[in-house]
Amino acid sequence: MKDRRTFLKQSGILTTSALLYSGTGLSAMAQSEQGTYTHAAQKGSRWLDGSRLVVSVSMQFEAGGQPENAESPFPQNMQKGYKDLPAETWYQYGYREGIPRMLDNWDKLGIKVTSHMVGGAVLKNPELAKEIVQRGHEAAAHGMNWATQYTMPYAEEKKFIGDGVDAIRKITGFNPIGYNANWLRRGENTLKILQELGFLYHIDDLSRDEPFIQKVNGKAFVTVPYTLRCNDIQLIEGKNFSVDQFINQVKMEFDQLYQEAATRRRQMSISFHDRIGGTPQMVQATKELFTYMTNQPGVNFKRKDEIARMALEDKTTITE
Amino acid sequence: MKDRRTFLKQSGILTTSALLYSGTGLSAMAQSEQGTYTHAAQKGSRWLDGSRLVVSVSMQFEAGGQPENAESPFPQNMQKGYKDLPAETWYQYGYREGIPRMLDNWDKLGIKVTSHMVGGAVLKNPELAKEIVQRGHEAAAHGMNWATQYTMPYAEEKKFIGDGVDAIRKITGFNPIGYNANWLRRGENTLKILQELGFLYHIDDLSRDEPFIQKVNGKAFVTVPYTLRCNDIQLIEGKNFSVDQFINQVKMEFDQLYQEAATRRRQMSISFHDRIGGTPQMVQATKELFTYMTNQPGVNFKRKDEIARMALEDKTTITE
Amino acid sequence: MKDRRTFLKQSGILTTSALLYSGTGLSAMAQSEQGTYTHAAQKGSRWLDGSRLVVSVSMQFEAGGQPENAESPFPQNMQKGYKDLPAETWYQYGYREGIPRMLDNWDKLGIKVTSHMVGGAVLKNPELAKEIVQRGHEAAAHGMNWATQYTMPYAEEKKFIGDGVDAIRKITGFNPIGYNANWLRRGENTLKILQELGFLYHIDDLSRDEPFIQKVNGKAFVTVPYTLRCNDIQLIEGKNFSVDQFINQVKMEFDQLYQEAATRRRQMSISFHDRIGGTPQMVQATKELFTYMTNQPGVNFKRKDEIARMALEDKTTITE
Amino acid sequence: MKDRRTFLKQSGILTTSALLYSGTGLSAMAQSEQGTYTHAAQKGSRWLDGSRLVVSVSMQFEAGGQPENAESPFPQNMQKGYKDLPAETWYQYGYREGIPRMLDNWDKLGIKVTSHMVGGAVLKNPELAKEIVQRGHEAAAHGMNWATQYTMPYAEEKKFIGDGVDAIRKITGFNPIGYNANWLRRGENTLKILQELGFLYHIDDLSRDEPFIQKVNGKAFVTVPYTLRCNDIQLIEGKNFSVDQFINQVKMEFDQLYQEAATRRRQMSISFHDRIGGTPQMVQATKELFTYMTNQPGVNFKRKDEIARMALEDKTTITE
Repeated sequence: MKDRRTFLKQSGILTTSALLYSGTGLSAMAQSEQGTYTHAAQKGSRWLDGSRLVVSVSMQFEAGGQPENAESPFPQNMQKGYKDLPAETWYQYGYREGIPRMLDNWDKLGIKVTSHMVGGAVLKNPELAKEIVQRGHEAAAHGMNWATQYTMPYAEEKKFIGDGVDAIRKITGFNPIGYNANWLRRGENTLKILQELGFLYHIDDLSRDEPFIQKVNGKAFVTVPYTLRCNDIQLIEGKNFSVDQFINQVKMEFDQLYQEAATRRRQMSISFHDRIGGTPQMVQATKELFTYMTNQPGVNFKRKDEIARMALEDKTTITE
Repeated sequence: MKDRRTFLKQSGILTTSALLYSGTGLSAMAQSEQGTYTHAAQKGSRWLDGSRLVVSVSMQFEAGGQPENAESPFPQNMQKGYKDLPAETWYQYGYREGIPRMLDNWDKLGIKVTSHMVGGAVLKNPELAKEIVQRGHEAAAHGMNWATQYTMPYAEEKKFIGDGVDAIRKITGFNPIGYNANWLRRGENTLKILQELGFLYHIDDLSRDEPFIQKVNGKAFVTVPYTLRCNDIQLIEGKNFSVDQFINQVKMEFDQLYQEAATRRRQMSISFHDRIGGTPQMVQATKELFTYMTNQPGVNFKRKDEIARMALEDKTTITE
Repeated sequence: MKDRRTFLKQSGILTTSALLYSGTGLSAMAQSEQGTYTHAAQKGSRWLDGSRLVVSVSMQFEAGGQPENAESPFPQNMQKGYKDLPAETWYQYGYREGIPRMLDNWDKLGIKVTSHMVGGAVLKNPELAKEIVQRGHEAAAHGMNWATQYTMPYAEEKKFIGDGVDAIRKITGFNPIGYNANWLRRGENTLKILQELGFLYHIDDLSRDEPFIQKVNGKAFVTVPYTLRCNDIQLIEGKNFSVDQFINQVKMEFDQLYQEAATRRRQMSISFHDRIGGTPQMVQATKELFTYMTNQPGVNFKRKDEIARMALEDKTTITE
Repeated sequence: MKDRRTFLKQSGILTTSALLYSGTGLSAMAQSEQGTYTHAAQKGSRWLDGSRLVVSVSMQFEAGGQPENAESPFPQNMQKGYKDLPAETWYQYGYREGIPRMLDNWDKLGIKVTSHMVGGAVLKNPELAKEIVQRGHEAAAHGMNWATQYTMPYAEEKKFIGDGVDAIRKITGFNPIGYNANWLRRGENTLKILQELGFLYHIDDLSRDEPFIQKVNGKAFVTVPYTLRCNDIQLIEGKNFSVDQFINQVKMEFDQLYQEAATRRRQMSISFHDRIGGTPQMVQATKELFTYMTNQPGVNFKRKDEIARMALEDKTTITE
């Protein structure tokens, strides 16, 4: 779906000023040292490309790369030495039905997403990994498997991340420049390693509603922030919402951020996982919600690599 | 309730083509080796009998066959050596009120279901087991009691399944050809044993939204897939939804699958357990939901044995 | 609020027959031995007093009688040797605000309830206990304190129950004839002891949606059944529903039972606890819900002692 | 927003009597010894300043003052010796986005709140602490950090509270006279210490829906009561409601208290925490809810220090 604001602009119906200054003013807020306090909102300084609200959608591709007897909705009481066969089928759903259903939904809605892919999942279902990229979505990295990386020594962590990158590059042809650790649990070395490996951004940070830049090894490294509060792994699997609660909650998030986005840079972050967000009930819910969202002027769904590049290019991006 | 689509067909109001091609097209998807990827959707290839969406309802008959001090909504803090008397009454509700109420609801809605019966439950309330079959529903097997079968040696597991089958056959006269393990927890031998005992299908697999065939001992064996996300044991007992959340969530599942079913084979799976789905509030909720569903053209509620036989007969069934 | 059905009867607008046979017929169900199967529904045999649906409300008076550091919404991590002071204030709310607010609500709705009173709670707030009875509600027994009675030897359990009865009798003047064990956890001797102490009924049984009679020591003893699924201690405190979910769920329970009650005896059971059901949000929810319910013809809110006596008098009461 | 009732009074549209006696009468309730029973409602005795319903909002400022590896929505499975980096970012959100967003919302709604500030949070983000006070809100004390104070010896607890007070005084210029212990967990000495340090009130008590006075060291000390049932830390973080459930539940609380407030003194207590109540979805929900509330005549949002002072001045305040 085309950006209605762009349409209106081109039609000359609304001037740029009107589009940018349509909201109520926000109080100016001081910036404390080390960027712990939100950057002063400059009138009109929203996104470099003129977007009002940027929405970042994640479609995590993990199934097939999970360890044996990984957590699932089944009672966690398997006896030692036995494989949890039904739990395996719950994961299989992620690539047999989940991702394909979501891919069709993104086409229907006309949006592009970022898919953080676990290396093992890519190797298990190479055709699916390739299809995600071929249909216009970003392939980002998510480790080689589900191992805990924050306890790894430097070299081991670097290999762990690198192997996952190689799998994605080799199978899909896409070079990943963004990273997501398992449960966001990075270690003290992670950002340095990511930069050495050529990454531009990571998402393992919940602290803001807009991207920001940190110096890592003296060079800029972008955070494209993430949320748990609009994330199916917390809402649906973890905190047991029904899908209509998911809609209600994420819609209210949108309504507030959309208002704020009239006068300052705002990014919304929503996340789906193959076996959770890809169910028929979740895809129906998402379709209703995103149809509502895409109908508001100035709302742009963007891949995280686009967001990261725009943040780097924009001199007004918060820099810590 | 008669299939409105059949009615319309007979009335000549809609041609078969119109009925089959009424949805939006789905992207063709490649099939990777070992059937890990969804089968390519062929235009018009829905169900052999012309159904648009097939809905499979389970009504599990377990109460009376539970072990002593089985889990319940009561605090799990019984002192050793004492019987949990109130928990027993919670289970009794399953056969005193729950199943009878659900049977009346299926009659009111005009649908047939599959009842997986624990052998012990059948022996405890033989009249009720017989009535389930006499009223047109399928009796399927669910083990002799609630024992953990995936740890059993071959012979022990074969006797365990066989005893449950014998109880059902002897009391109801129905020969079960479908199986459900306790919490879907089958073992490495289960499918072989089921085939040896003459079963046609099992349901202990969450990986697809349509039936599929595996080779077991070189012969076809059907999976009629199951869900936890439309299952009262997870939603109501396990994850604590209120009954209106149950309606909202399952309705969204239906809406999405119904759309997909315009151009490809789709099966919906909903499950109730005697003491949970048989409460007045759950039966009221189910009645409202199913009334909505049965009012859509092309929706057919089928017993799993019918689904399994249709899958075997249909050469386009996914075969792994 | 006057029973509209009685009003209509008196007005001659509806004949008794019309009132009794207004629902759809239920299938006749066989009775298996030992009363494990629901009694055959006789046409017109609803309640002896002509009620269509009987609703039993519990208002449990426990606060003040709880042990030190009793469970509460606070994190259960008190260090040994210290009193949980905020948790005590949560209990105090039960008698300072909760019961008084509920008493006003019952007056506003024009209904009478049964209050199971813990002996210690009665001694702590004698004026409140007296007021409950003076305002027309039934005082029923609930043990002397929160001790686990199912592990007690016979004499100890008899004293435990008796002391609670004495407290109620002495303070309120009301002689309790009904009993509720802590979390329904009675023991093997409880019913015998209750009968010896002159009780007519107990509520610690979830197995039916109508009262029934058992032989205890060769004499009839009534069960006025209870629920957890319409109980604030499970829904609000235990399973974390919001109050609007409570309304939705209990309303659906009512709608189904009301329909069934057209042709058979049905009892609904709803329970509130001083500190949970007595909050402003719960009382508002209850008011909305009960206003809806009392507006249906033939709905009668009754104290459990009235229900028990009616069950004893009625020869068609299920007898196990 | 001006008190509409005051407006009407001044306009002569409604007489004082009409305003005060517009609700239904409450039953008179006896007062038992030691104030364990609610004080008799005197006709017309609402609040000294003529308010009908007083609403107390808390905006807790804790983030930045939390211990290492403090609890969070992340799986609580950090290996020993490692810092929970993503959990830190969840806390950072509290002061980077949460508090600023809530401050804007209070301005938009025209209300003042009480912010209980942890000493460590104030020192970490002094500009933000100052801004809270500069924008008209009350700074109240909340300990120096998250330590468990109920186990501290007298002198240690006095220093712990005093250090937090000093941080607030030094940074914001505001002298705190109200206190909130971590999870309300005060000890046997807390009230005495608070009084010695010059505090007027504490909030760590859930037992009433109006303020009350206790004698501490022979002098009056006020309780401005708190709730968990209208508290984002319990509803949103603890008990997993979606934000629309939060609205529904708190709205019903308001509706009931507003009615009661026609003829007696009623206080509503709602609490938000920086990282929970400050999310876009929660601020949107709060905005909708509070807009509804502020539109009812006689509703006054007050800081707790104002409530405490009014309670001290009013001779009809419940005194235990």
